[in-house]
Amino acid sequence: MSTALPESHPLADGRTASSALVLAARRQPVPHTPVWFMRQAGRSLPEYRAIRQGTAMLESCFTTDLVVEITLQPVRRYGVDAAIFFSDIVVPLKAIGVDLDIKPGVGPVIAEPFRTAADVDRLRDLTPDDVTPVLAAVTALTGELGATPLIGFAGAPFTLASYLVEGGPSRDHAQTKALMYGAPDVWHALLGRLAEIAGEFLRQQVLAGASAVQLFDSWVGALPARDYREYVLPHSTRALAAVADLGVPRIHFGVGTGELLADMRDAGTDVVGVDFRVPLVEAARRVGDQHALQGNLDPAALFAGRDAVDARVRQVLADAEGLPGHIFNLGHGVLPDTDPDVLHRVVDLVHELTAR
Amino acid sequence: MSTALPESHPLADGRTASSALVLAARRQPVPHTPVWFMRQAGRSLPEYRAIRQGTAMLESCFTTDLVVEITLQPVRRYGVDAAIFFSDIVVPLKAIGVDLDIKPGVGPVIAEPFRTAADVDRLRDLTPDDVTPVLAAVTALTGELGATPLIGFAGAPFTLASYLVEGGPSRDHAQTKALMYGAPDVWHALLGRLAEIAGEFLRQQVLAGASAVQLFDSWVGALPARDYREYVLPHSTRALAAVADLGVPRIHFGVGTGELLADMRDAGTDVVGVDFRVPLVEAARRVGDQHALQGNLDPAALFAGRDAVDARVRQVLADAEGLPGHIFNLGHGVLPDTDPDVLHRVVDLVHELTAR
Repeated sequence: MSTALPESHPLADGRTASSALVLAARRQPVPHTPVWFMRQAGRSLPEYRAIRQGTAMLESCFTTDLVVEITLQPVRRYGVDAAIFFSDIVVPLKAIGVDLDIKPGVGPVIAEPFRTAADVDRLRDLTPDDVTPVLAAVTALTGELGATPLIGFAGAPFTLASYLVEGGPSRDHAQTKALMYGAPDVWHALLGRLAEIAGEFLRQQVLAGASAVQLFDSWVGALPARDYREYVLPHSTRALAAVADLGVPRIHFGVGTGELLADMRDAGTDVVGVDFRVPLVEAARRVGDQHALQGNLDPAALFAGRDAVDARVRQVLADAEGLPGHIFNLGHGVLPDTDPDVLHRVVDLVHELTAR
Repeated sequence: MSTALPESHPLADGRTASSALVLAARRQPVPHTPVWFMRQAGRSLPEYRAIRQGTAMLESCFTTDLVVEITLQPVRRYGVDAAIFFSDIVVPLKAIGVDLDIKPGVGPVIAEPFRTAADVDRLRDLTPDDVTPVLAAVTALTGELGATPLIGFAGAPFTLASYLVEGGPSRDHAQTKALMYGAPDVWHALLGRLAEIAGEFLRQQVLAGASAVQLFDSWVGALPARDYREYVLPHSTRALAAVADLGVPRIHFGVGTGELLADMRDAGTDVVGVDFRVPLVEAARRVGDQHALQGNLDPAALFAGRDAVDARVRQVLADAEGLPGHIFNLGHGVLPDTDPDVLHRVVDLVHELTAR
């Protein structure tokens, strides 16, 4: 199944192949439902805030020791079933020379937004040398994590394009859609480049030791399905295809993508990530039984008190009953003010309720 | 049909009863597809920015002459088929004494957020005397508008609650959901009060001359359908029931509510507003043929250039073919930077393509 992987890769040498995460993604029997949290590494952890003091976000992402430590923090604290390496989706863009920064309280800010065919040429190929400290962190983490799989990740072409075209985070994606609908040739050229960059970044992470990958199309829920199929799906497919021969589980997720689940499945993924707006039982109806699902506790529900949190964890597990494979997660990233003890409780409860 | 209306009401005395908007909402034959735009009055118009200079948003909403003039501006400029009175959804809350302000670039900010049972008691009944200048504007507008119907509006209980509980706009509605899931008794008490306030405000607007109403549940797309049914639907139903005996068309809309369309229909509305993420043809499948639909051109698409805008207008109209009733609108409010000439073009094109 993973013949193209180096022999020493943790999925090839047996370390992570029987982890709950990999088994669930492959729709095989699991010892318990695996659980991890999007954005588990970062913001909500006091030990993260302590170690980040005095170091800017982007600098942290390119500092091997910091990436390793921050990635391990939630694994140590919670006993989650996977690590996801600490980074930001604009890291590969920074790595190939796009002038951008991550501003606290704002997010990525692009110095010169991308709007024309000439702008597309500002995106060159990503090579392993561009992300040396990142890949060094992945390799180091693989050594530290033992049987716990490391999930590599990248931003999907649409979401990367949204940052590049808008120049930063956007609620309405107006410039992005103006380009997509108004200049489809430029759009497809831009997304084609981004698909290659995202795909290559995923591939390098896997070769460095990641046992799974997640492609985040955070903002693609802003599109109706027919536009998704025309303007996005071919490019996300290309990004995910870049790791197809490596045999690692692929996860594909976006926020508010209930209408797009079947199309995102068709991008070529093993696991479809589900936002909290669609119950897993309904998501399974849309996705079919040839894929595992990941999700989907509402991160806002973690503020509702222990009884309510417990009840909603049980509801997610009840919705997941009979799924071919289920990876427990939130339906969106951990919110900054989340109490780490509540997340810890969720991990324990999922493990306890699903132990076989 | 409208026996409870005063005889001099424009819908009762015949002025607006055969307008395209009212006919479409009632699923009767129309001379052309009616078109209006959410947020047509305001931000994007230079004449609006000129007249607002030196007057704060909330003050404008309580100044009769300003409300009248701002409401009429898009009707004059575009020839839209309906006016919607210029206001903000927090106006009735301000009117009953909630300490709040609307901050430029931010939105409504509540001085003391609502979190407990005691807070619910801070919401008293709305009486016509609380909104005298607003109702005076509605009455004056009715005189000015002739055969063009005025749409009254209110924020729906969930969306009002979100502002009150969060203390302002929120992306994740974490405190709102914490209250909803964690203290359902307080939640239902709060939404019950808000339903009465919203319903009474709609009723007063209709009695003052509005020929239709729209209940905006802007943020309710943050909920899965089963939570909508449990925590929201009874209250939205109560708000809309407050005008049921008056026989004016009711429109119900929220952003990102594709999963909720059938439930929002069940709140008791004549027209279901559809966000741009779900094609009207699919929305009709979910809503059935006993309701008209409103929507759903993506406001971001208005930035894509004339050919693309025209193509997308045609697509919305093609999707609406065969609907029992269709009111053309955007799938969300007009964005601040929108070119008014583009909106004008959309109105003309819809009228031209649908003239019978």
